[in-house]
Amino acid sequence: MSLYALGLCEAADDIRQGRISSAELVGACIDRVAEIDTEVQAWAFLDRDHALAQARALDDHRAHGRPLGPLHGVPIGIKDIFDTGDMPTELGSPIWAGRTPRRDAAAVARLREAGAVIMGKTVTTEYAYFHAGKTRNPHDPQRTPGGSSSGSAAAVAALMVPGAIGSQTNGSVIRPAAFCGVVGFKPTHGLVSRSGALELSRSFDHVGVFARSVEDAALLAEVMVGFDIEDPDTRPVARPPFATVAASEPPLPPRFAFVRSPVWDQAEPVMRDAFAELVDALGESVVEVELGESFGKVIDLHRLVMEVEMAHNLRRDYESGGEQLSPQLRQLIERGRAHSGVDYCAGLAGMRTFNDALDFVFDEYDAILTPSAPGEAPAIATTGNPAFCTTWTYLGTPSISLPLMRSEAGLPLGVQLVARRGNDARLLRTARWLVRTLAGGKPRAKAGTSSKRKGRQR
Amino acid sequence: MSLYALGLCEAADDIRQGRISSAELVGACIDRVAEIDTEVQAWAFLDRDHALAQARALDDHRAHGRPLGPLHGVPIGIKDIFDTGDMPTELGSPIWAGRTPRRDAAAVARLREAGAVIMGKTVTTEYAYFHAGKTRNPHDPQRTPGGSSSGSAAAVAALMVPGAIGSQTNGSVIRPAAFCGVVGFKPTHGLVSRSGALELSRSFDHVGVFARSVEDAALLAEVMVGFDIEDPDTRPVARPPFATVAASEPPLPPRFAFVRSPVWDQAEPVMRDAFAELVDALGESVVEVELGESFGKVIDLHRLVMEVEMAHNLRRDYESGGEQLSPQLRQLIERGRAHSGVDYCAGLAGMRTFNDALDFVFDEYDAILTPSAPGEAPAIATTGNPAFCTTWTYLGTPSISLPLMRSEAGLPLGVQLVARRGNDARLLRTARWLVRTLAGGKPRAKAGTSSKRKGRQR
Repeated sequence: MSLYALGLCEAADDIRQGRISSAELVGACIDRVAEIDTEVQAWAFLDRDHALAQARALDDHRAHGRPLGPLHGVPIGIKDIFDTGDMPTELGSPIWAGRTPRRDAAAVARLREAGAVIMGKTVTTEYAYFHAGKTRNPHDPQRTPGGSSSGSAAAVAALMVPGAIGSQTNGSVIRPAAFCGVVGFKPTHGLVSRSGALELSRSFDHVGVFARSVEDAALLAEVMVGFDIEDPDTRPVARPPFATVAASEPPLPPRFAFVRSPVWDQAEPVMRDAFAELVDALGESVVEVELGESFGKVIDLHRLVMEVEMAHNLRRDYESGGEQLSPQLRQLIERGRAHSGVDYCAGLAGMRTFNDALDFVFDEYDAILTPSAPGEAPAIATTGNPAFCTTWTYLGTPSISLPLMRSEAGLPLGVQLVARRGNDARLLRTARWLVRTLAGGKPRAKAGTSSKRKGRQR
Repeated sequence: MSLYALGLCEAADDIRQGRISSAELVGACIDRVAEIDTEVQAWAFLDRDHALAQARALDDHRAHGRPLGPLHGVPIGIKDIFDTGDMPTELGSPIWAGRTPRRDAAAVARLREAGAVIMGKTVTTEYAYFHAGKTRNPHDPQRTPGGSSSGSAAAVAALMVPGAIGSQTNGSVIRPAAFCGVVGFKPTHGLVSRSGALELSRSFDHVGVFARSVEDAALLAEVMVGFDIEDPDTRPVARPPFATVAASEPPLPPRFAFVRSPVWDQAEPVMRDAFAELVDALGESVVEVELGESFGKVIDLHRLVMEVEMAHNLRRDYESGGEQLSPQLRQLIERGRAHSGVDYCAGLAGMRTFNDALDFVFDEYDAILTPSAPGEAPAIATTGNPAFCTTWTYLGTPSISLPLMRSEAGLPLGVQLVARRGNDARLLRTARWLVRTLAGGKPRAKAGTSSKRKGRQR
């Protein structure tokens, strides 16, 4: 296997054991970028020498017998909305071209503490919203990688880096992970500090991760979890052992609630058929569950709260940025300015009501099983539809997208698992079980491998 | 000393040591109520037999040698916005007459765990806002006890109960404490759970206490502090030892920052003169500090956020309560419904900005010294002006009102001390130092005792 294709846990282990050096790994990844990034364009900033200098310093650290972090020497890509003290952070907007923050965002600082090489900055849509950046889908350059964490998803999918971080305020981790065919994991709201990252919406901004396996995503997320007095939604509680639990076997086979969710009418035929097959393959492990009509309101509540908070946070850019802001973003801010305070409060209050209303599902099932996106990645003109992520972003529940299926065109289709707030480690364990069970052909092989069934999808 | 006049710590100690029984103490307090409450009218609900039954059960508990809580057998009054599972909770509104909750508010449950006798429910203004209840100031029945925790302040001042709890969303603990001449203490926002209490404003609702000494207030507050998953602003951190620290000596004499605050123009001559004398008496312990002009905005930010949150929380009562809501409350709700979401968000964001802006004061001084109210208690037609409390409610800082001064008419004038968020225990220690220093005549006796100076006040 080429060095650049190593998974994150494997790479960390190889470095720790001295089988490879960080400089070798980072060098291989940089060569891979040179080879294919002209097409993919995942990177907003990548300085070969700076990345290698970090790697050599970490190799030197190890050579002196000093203690190693869990990610020692492993390169990680950083979405360009997270401040980095040693690289520009431009937020995907010409307004902020050349911006050089003084210090690292909390999430980046935690990665450095864990020994990671901060490889470079990955392309984000404008302010992590809808207006697309330059990145292409590695599976088909005419298609979107999804947004807003476009570069992070594409870089991991194209084997340029074993892991990357992104953010989700609506569907910005789960959707690009699904379109690019990698694992995307969004931990419970408030587990990972957002300080030093672009703030769009305190209520919905989540830090998330991209990797090529559940175990890799678990380790990458785990090292970032923790209390930060600068982020009022983090809590001083013990860090959950994501990686250990994710790698363990469930005591009983997990049970899944197949939830079509209120946006099922937006699912494309390819996704409906793939899910029919998946549910069929899982047999008695899965039961279809209806959430109840009131969940139909969640999409509107999310939109209202997000629009108000984005209008608040981007007030100055709106007032002084003029034409440098995309029309989509300006329109969103104008909608946000028009909402009333009491409607906003009602939108916040619903978060608790609807989480409570999900108890009946999570009391009985390990995870909700639902699509990550309406279908395969659409053409490059958009970043795709986040509707299948909105409910789980609004609720702040942990969710993960798994690249378990493919369309007839060979494009990835994402399967999303969702768990109760705070049950992240168990969700990861359940996700790994699902991946291995489907890969092992028991209960049945991946959806989309039966050409007969695929024939019926179109 | 009559039993009913015992302070809270002293009463708890006497019961613990077996010098008195809880039934004796509660009986004496109830007799005191019978003697003077026709005039004061502090109680919304008081059932003699139920209070005595609790006391006898606690005496029995002690007689069996079981472990005793820190408030074992001590009667406490509860503002009638805190749910009680064994008494009505009517929120000061005819809309809720006869309402009987199923369970105790978290604060009440913590008091019961500490061994307190829940003596009865004290009068609140309508929904803890401005429309006055029936209570009179014990010092002069033609004057207001202050609001909204009117009955709690008056009951403690009139020696009907050694301690009581209340709430503050603007000036509802500090102001009535000042007008009634007792100690009122509002711990840092989020230290005491509000679950099961009437929610007016998540951002500003604080649980507070009334007692007749700093040590008594410290113990009463301490037993209520703690994490509660039902109140999203509480934190899972260790309970601070208020009572122990409050009773200790400061390692160095405290330094005070005399802050006139942006509402000084509302201070009446009696208060201006009293403060001139107090500052003079404290000599080198106090330095006048200016907060800076921007603090002038805080009153408006507080009003906007409070109006929006009250309009949100009282939406149903507004929509169905009609004429049963006072005009003041209806007008407030209508103002709240008119504010925009982005202005509300800006109001919330200011809380952090202005707390940070106070660092320069708290880095150098133990406490801010400022009036609790513009002057003495005004006539019964209003509940008085909360303006001197608003800034410290908005900021969520701990504050305490001390009955250190009197007007020429013999009415109490409150001195307010304010500390950095989270520095509650140190604030209590500083407050006790101030009380003892002024009582001891060093640096000088109470303001208002010099008739020459008083002569200049009017």
